Amino acid sequence: MAIQRLFEIDEWKIKTNIFQKEHKRLQESLTSIANGYMGIRGNFEESYSGDSHQGTYIAGVWFPDKTRVGWWKNGYPEYFGKVINAMNFIGIDVYIDGEKIDLYQHPIESFALELDMKEGILRRSAVVSIRDKTVRIRSERFLSLAVKELCAIHYEAECLTDEAVITLVPYLDGNVANEDANYQDRFWQEAAKGADSNRGHLVTKTIENPFGTPRFTVSAAMANVTKGFVSESYKTAGMYAENRYSYETKPGTKASLTKFVAVTTSRDFQEAELLSKGRELLADIVDRGYEEARRRHIDQWKERWEKADIEIKGDDVLQQGIRYNIFQLFSTYYGDDPRLNIGPKGFTGEKYGGAAYWDTEAYAVPMYLATADPEVTKNLLLYRYHHLEAAKRNAAKLGMKGALYPMVTFIGDECHNEWEITFEEIHRNGAICYAIYNYINYTGDKDYMKDYGIDVLVEISRFWADRVHFSKRKNKYMIHGVTGPNEYENNVNNNWYTNLIAAWTLEYTLENLADIPAEKHRRLKVREDEIETWKDIIERMYYPYSEELNIFVQHDTFLDKELQAADDLNPDERPLYQHWSWDKILRSSFIKQADVLQGMYLLNHRFTLEEKRRNFEFYEPMTVHESSLSPSVHAVLAAELQMEKKALELYKRTARLDLDNYNRDTEEGLHITSMTGSWLAIVQGFAGMRVANETLSFAPFLPKEWNGYSFKINYRNRLIQVAVAENSVVFDLLKGDPLQMTVYQKPILLNGRYEGRTPDE
Amino acid sequence: MAIQRLFEIDEWKIKTNIFQKEHKRLQESLTSIANGYMGIRGNFEESYSGDSHQGTYIAGVWFPDKTRVGWWKNGYPEYFGKVINAMNFIGIDVYIDGEKIDLYQHPIESFALELDMKEGILRRSAVVSIRDKTVRIRSERFLSLAVKELCAIHYEAECLTDEAVITLVPYLDGNVANEDANYQDRFWQEAAKGADSNRGHLVTKTIENPFGTPRFTVSAAMANVTKGFVSESYKTAGMYAENRYSYETKPGTKASLTKFVAVTTSRDFQEAELLSKGRELLADIVDRGYEEARRRHIDQWKERWEKADIEIKGDDVLQQGIRYNIFQLFSTYYGDDPRLNIGPKGFTGEKYGGAAYWDTEAYAVPMYLATADPEVTKNLLLYRYHHLEAAKRNAAKLGMKGALYPMVTFIGDECHNEWEITFEEIHRNGAICYAIYNYINYTGDKDYMKDYGIDVLVEISRFWADRVHFSKRKNKYMIHGVTGPNEYENNVNNNWYTNLIAAWTLEYTLENLADIPAEKHRRLKVREDEIETWKDIIERMYYPYSEELNIFVQHDTFLDKELQAADDLNPDERPLYQHWSWDKILRSSFIKQADVLQGMYLLNHRFTLEEKRRNFEFYEPMTVHESSLSPSVHAVLAAELQMEKKALELYKRTARLDLDNYNRDTEEGLHITSMTGSWLAIVQGFAGMRVANETLSFAPFLPKEWNGYSFKINYRNRLIQVAVAENSVVFDLLKGDPLQMTVYQKPILLNGRYEGRTPDE
Repeated sequence: MAIQRLFEIDEWKIKTNIFQKEHKRLQESLTSIANGYMGIRGNFEESYSGDSHQGTYIAGVWFPDKTRVGWWKNGYPEYFGKVINAMNFIGIDVYIDGEKIDLYQHPIESFALELDMKEGILRRSAVVSIRDKTVRIRSERFLSLAVKELCAIHYEAECLTDEAVITLVPYLDGNVANEDANYQDRFWQEAAKGADSNRGHLVTKTIENPFGTPRFTVSAAMANVTKGFVSESYKTAGMYAENRYSYETKPGTKASLTKFVAVTTSRDFQEAELLSKGRELLADIVDRGYEEARRRHIDQWKERWEKADIEIKGDDVLQQGIRYNIFQLFSTYYGDDPRLNIGPKGFTGEKYGGAAYWDTEAYAVPMYLATADPEVTKNLLLYRYHHLEAAKRNAAKLGMKGALYPMVTFIGDECHNEWEITFEEIHRNGAICYAIYNYINYTGDKDYMKDYGIDVLVEISRFWADRVHFSKRKNKYMIHGVTGPNEYENNVNNNWYTNLIAAWTLEYTLENLADIPAEKHRRLKVREDEIETWKDIIERMYYPYSEELNIFVQHDTFLDKELQAADDLNPDERPLYQHWSWDKILRSSFIKQADVLQGMYLLNHRFTLEEKRRNFEFYEPMTVHESSLSPSVHAVLAAELQMEKKALELYKRTARLDLDNYNRDTEEGLHITSMTGSWLAIVQGFAGMRVANETLSFAPFLPKEWNGYSFKINYRNRLIQVAVAENSVVFDLLKGDPLQMTVYQKPILLNGRYEGRTPDE
Repeated sequence: MAIQRLFEIDEWKIKTNIFQKEHKRLQESLTSIANGYMGIRGNFEESYSGDSHQGTYIAGVWFPDKTRVGWWKNGYPEYFGKVINAMNFIGIDVYIDGEKIDLYQHPIESFALELDMKEGILRRSAVVSIRDKTVRIRSERFLSLAVKELCAIHYEAECLTDEAVITLVPYLDGNVANEDANYQDRFWQEAAKGADSNRGHLVTKTIENPFGTPRFTVSAAMANVTKGFVSESYKTAGMYAENRYSYETKPGTKASLTKFVAVTTSRDFQEAELLSKGRELLADIVDRGYEEARRRHIDQWKERWEKADIEIKGDDVLQQGIRYNIFQLFSTYYGDDPRLNIGPKGFTGEKYGGAAYWDTEAYAVPMYLATADPEVTKNLLLYRYHHLEAAKRNAAKLGMKGALYPMVTFIGDECHNEWEITFEEIHRNGAICYAIYNYINYTGDKDYMKDYGIDVLVEISRFWADRVHFSKRKNKYMIHGVTGPNEYENNVNNNWYTNLIAAWTLEYTLENLADIPAEKHRRLKVREDEIETWKDIIERMYYPYSEELNIFVQHDTFLDKELQAADDLNPDERPLYQHWSWDKILRSSFIKQADVLQGMYLLNHRFTLEEKRRNFEFYEPMTVHESSLSPSVHAVLAAELQMEKKALELYKRTARLDLDNYNRDTEEGLHITSMTGSWLAIVQGFAGMRVANETLSFAPFLPKEWNGYSFKINYRNRLIQVAVAENSVVFDLLKGDPLQMTVYQKPILLNGRYEGRTPDE
C-alpha cells in the first residue's frame, strides 16, 4: 500500500522543515494536541487563507444535530450528537507595517514544525516575506496536563531585514462553524465578551435545541504578557475579543508575547462563575510565569511515559509510530472524568462526532489496563454503568427487554441512525460485558462486579434472551438480522461472532450471579425462569460451521458467496468503500474488519491453536482491513500462530496508520481508538501477554527485523518492565511485591529481575 | 379493520353535509381533482386558518431536493426529486363588511360538499356567520379535460340576513412551501407578476439547483368575470397578484364571480411566451363562457366512462369505491404526454414526490390496457424507453453492466436513497420488462418490440447477467443482497421472486431476439457468448424450495424464522411499521406485500392450481398487506383458487382503501397507483380475464353478496361489455369485428351478443 509521510523519522518527535500547503489538513490532524479536557488541531496561530480545518474541541461539550434519515422507519433517534467545534482561542494575528501576515499567501523562506511527544509541546518557526520585509516568527504551545483549563502560547516576532512596525493581536473568536453540520447550522451564540488592557474574555453558549439535551456554556479568559511592545489597545466586536500590541522594531530585536487562556465550562462550574473561575486560575499562572507552567506540564508527561513507554530497538520508524499512538491516546483520555469517553477521532476532527463507540471497550480498555492506573479503566466502565437506564430506554425503543448500549452516544441515548447499525449492530452489547470481564480479570477488583458490573450484565443478558428466537426447523436458538463487526455485511442471520458473544454474556452473567450477595440479588430480580432460559440458550445456540472446510462460518449464507482474495483486487479500486457501491461490497466476500477472528481474539482460551490457524488462513486473505480497528487483532493472532512475517506486516499497518496516512483520510482527523492496536500487537502479540486464572503470562518473541523491544506494564500494584532481545527476555519488577507469573507456560516468581531465553524456532 | 368514512355512499358522488375540521386533510385528499396536467387538493377557495394542507401540483414540474442519507456509502444519488407544491391559483378571499371569512374560525350553519365523479366537478356550499351577518357561499370548480391548462371556478356569495358589503378577492399566490422539503427550503422565486382591471398574472420559476437538472417556469394568467359588483381594484405584492370586487348587497341578491386561470409551463412553451399563450387560451374561453367550458369538460369525462365504467349491482358501497378509483386514476394519468408517469399519490399529496415507481408497470399498465386506447399504455412504456440511457448510467454507478431502471425518478436518474431500496430492490427491472410483454400480449402490437422493446430487454438482461453470481457450492446461479417486493425484508439472498423475474427476463429477451431484423441486431450488438451465458443462467438459476412444505421459499433463510400468522398480532400494534422498530419487522415472518404470490400472479400460466393453492395457503396468513399494492394480487389469486370469501374480503380492502382510510394515512394523499387494484380484482379476479396465446379468455363468477356486475374492456380495436349476473354471463360486442375468444376454457366466436351460464359450484 502506498504511504504518504509528511514528517521525518525521529524517536520522540514529529518534525519537518517543509511546509506543504496542499497537505495542510493532514499536517493539522497530525500535529493536534490535547489534554483530555480539550484539544486543538495543529492550526497556525496566524491567519491562513488557504484550505484548512480550524478545530477546537472541548470534551463533553456537544450538540444534538438534527437528522433526517430513515424518515418512515420506526425507532430511529432524532439527532446525531457531536462534540462541536468551539471558539478559536489560539489565534494571534500578526501585522507588519499594517499588513496582516497570511501564511498561505506570503512567501515562506524557512519553516520548522515539531511536535515533541516527550513533553507534549508543539513548536513552530518560520521566516516570512511580506512586501520588502522579512520576519521571523516562532510559536510554542501546550494544553496543560497540570491545569486542564490552561492553554499557553509563547510567541515571538522579529524583523530580520529592516525596521518595521510589528503588531500582534491575540484574540478569542467564537465565529466558528462545524464542518460536519447536517444543516449548516451555527451551534454557538454569544453569552458575554469584553477586553481591557492585557485581558480579554469571550463566553459562548450552545444554541437551544428541541431535543431536551443539555446546553453548554464555554468561557475563555485571556491574559497576555508582553515584552518589548510600546503601544497597546483592545476591542470587541461580534463574538470576538482582542488585545493589540505594536512596536517599531530594529533589526536584531524581537518582541515576545505569552498568551494564557483559561477555558472553563458549565460542565464544571455554575454559568455565573465561569469567567471568574477562569480568571482566578489565570492570575495564579501568570504570577508564576510561563516557564513554571510549562515545567509542570512536562513533568506530567514524564510520569505518564514512565509507566507506559515502549522502546523498539533497530526500527526508528516503528519506534516513532508506537510512541505517537500512545501520545495521542493519552492526550485524548487519561481517565480523569467518568463522564467522558474516547471519541474515535479524539479532539482531532469532527467525523464520528467525538462520541463513544464500542471501540473503547474492545480496543482501548486492554491498553489502559496495562499502561495506567486501574482507576482510568474503571472510569471508562463507570461511564457505561451510569448509562444503564438510557440503555434500557434504547432497548425499549426497539421493543426489546433489558439494555441495549448505543452505537454512538454522549449521555447513553442512541445517536446513530442507519438502521443496519443502530438496530442491528448489537454485538456492541457484548463488548460492554467483555470490558467488565477484562477489567476484573486484569485488576482482580472483584468488588466492581458486585457494585456495578452485575447490573449491566443482567440487563444485557435480558436483551440477548429477548433478541434470540427459536428455530423449530433446526432446534436451535438463532439471532437473525444483525450486523457483525464486519460492517461490509449488513442484516445477516446468525453472525457467528454475535451469537458467540451473546451466549458468552449469558454464561458470564450466570457465573457471576452465583457470587452476588443476597441483597443485591433482590434488587436485580432475576427470576428462576430467566435463568433457565439463559441456560437453554447457552446450550442450544446455533453456530454456523462448515464440516467441509472445518471452519466457523461468518454467517448463514457466507459460503454461497463468490469467495475471492483481497490480493486479487485491482489496487485502483481500494479502499473498496471509496470505489464500490454499497450493495457490491455487501455481496462480496471481502471483510472490512476481523469477524470470526475477533471472536477468537476475545475468547482466546476457548479455541485450539489448530482452530485459530484454520480460521485465520480462511478469513485473513479476504480481509481488506478497511476499518482501522482490524489489523491489530489479526496481528495478535498471527503472532500467536507464529506467522511472524504476517504479524509484522499487520503491525506496521497499525503502528503508522496516521503518520503514513494509510487510509487516505487522516486529514479528517486521527484514528485515535485504533491507536491502541499497535500496543496490542506488541504486548499481546509479540510478547504474548495474557491474563487468565489470576495469572499473568508471557511468551515473547523478537521479530527478526528488530534488535529488541521493551515496554512497561502495570499489573496489580506492580510496575514491570519487559525487555525482549535476540534470544533473551528480561523481566524487571520496578515497583511492588514479588509476583507469581508464567513465562512460556513455565511458572516463575518475579522478584527483582528474571532473565530467560526466547525459545529456539 | 376499523374504517374511517367521511363521505356518504352514492354511486356517482362523494358527498357530505358535515364539515369535520379535525379531518380537514383527509377531506382535502379525498376531494382532490386533476386532469393529468395539474391537480389540486380539495382545499377551500376561502381563507382557512386551521390545520390544512394547501396543495397544487403540476405534472412534470419538479425539484431536486438535496439529501444527506448514506453519507459515506458509495453510489447514492445526490437528490430526491419531487413534484413540488406550486402556486395557489384557486384562492378567493371573501370579506363581509371588511372582515375576512375564515372557514376555520367563523361558525358554519350548513355545509355541503360533493365531488361529482361522472362530471369531474367539485361543488361546495356553506352558510357562514360572521359577526351579525349570515352569508351563503357556493363554489364549483374543475380542471378541464378539454383544455388542460384551464382551471375554472364559479363562485357566488349572498348575504342572507341583512345588507352587507361583500368583497371577493380572487388571487394568485406563489408564497407556498412544500410540507415535504428536506431542508425547509422554498423552491420558487418570482419571475413576473401584474394585475389590471379583471386580470392578473403571476409567473414563478424554480430556484437554481446544484445538480444540473432543469428549472421550470410556471405562469398563471387569471381572468375574472363578475356579475353584480360595483367597485373593483387590483394589486400585486411579493409573489402575489389579486383583483378585488365589492358591492353592497341587499338580502336576496347575490353576486357571482367566475375565475378562469390558464396555467402554462416551460415544459410546453418558451419562457418568454408563457404568459401570452395563457392569455390567448383565456381570451377564447372567456369569450365562449363558463357553461361552454364546463360542457366540454363533462363531455370528455363521459367519453372516458363509456369505455371504462364498472357497475356493481347490489353493493353501492363497492360501486362507489370502484368508480372513485377509476375516477382518480384517470384524473392522474390518461396517456396524453409520454414524458409523464403516474406518481403513487398523483396530484393529491407530496409523499413519494410524485415520481415514477414500478407501481406503474406492475399495477397500472394492465388496467390502462383494458380501459383506454393502446396509446395510453404505449406512452407509459415509451417513458421508460426514453430513459434507457439514464438506466445504463444507474447501472454503471453501481459498477454493473446493462440497465437498471430507477426505483424513483423523473428523468430516468435514480432519486431514491436508502441502500436497501436504491441498490437492492432490483426486481423493479423485471416489472419494466413484464410491462412490455403485457402490452404486446394484450394489444398485439409486435412492432413495439422491434422498434423499442428489445432495446430495453437486452440492456436489462445484461444487467441481470452481471448481477448474478455463480455459487460453486450449489452449482447454481444466485442473486445475493436484494430486497424483494416484500419490503419487510431487506438485503436477502435468493429472493424467489427476483430470481424468477430475472430468469424470465432472459428467456423473454432470447425469445424475441430471434425475431429482430438483422439491422437492429447489429445495433444491439448482442454477442454469442452473452447469449450462451443467458441460457446457462436460465438453466441453472437457483430457486429456494422446501421439499418438506412443498412451497417456493421467499428467500434462503425465511424458514428459519419464527413463523407467525397475522391474525395472532395484537391489533394495537398494526400497522406494524408505525409500531415496531425496523429490525423487528425485518426479523419477523410478516409480509408487507405479496412476494412469492406476486411471481405466481405475473407468470400465472407457469404454475399449476395446486402450486398456487399451497403457496397461497402458506404465505397469505403471514401477509399484513401494509403496502396498498398487496391485497389486489392476493384477491386475484384467491378468486382463481375459488376462495370467494377471501377474494371478496381482499377486494373490499382495495376498493375503498382511501374512502375508508384503511391505512390511516390518506390525509397525506390518495394511493393512486394502488387504485388499479380494485379493477384488477374484479376483471382478472372475479371475471377471470386472461390474455394468452393471442386469445382473450374469461371465467367469471358472481360473489354471492352481489346481484351482478358489468364492465367494459377495450381489446384490439373492440369494445366489449361483460355482464355477470346470478347464473348468467353476457358478452356484448359494442364495437369492432367479431372475436374468437374463450369463456370457461371453451372457444366461442363473439359477434354481437353471447350469453352463457356461470358454472355450478
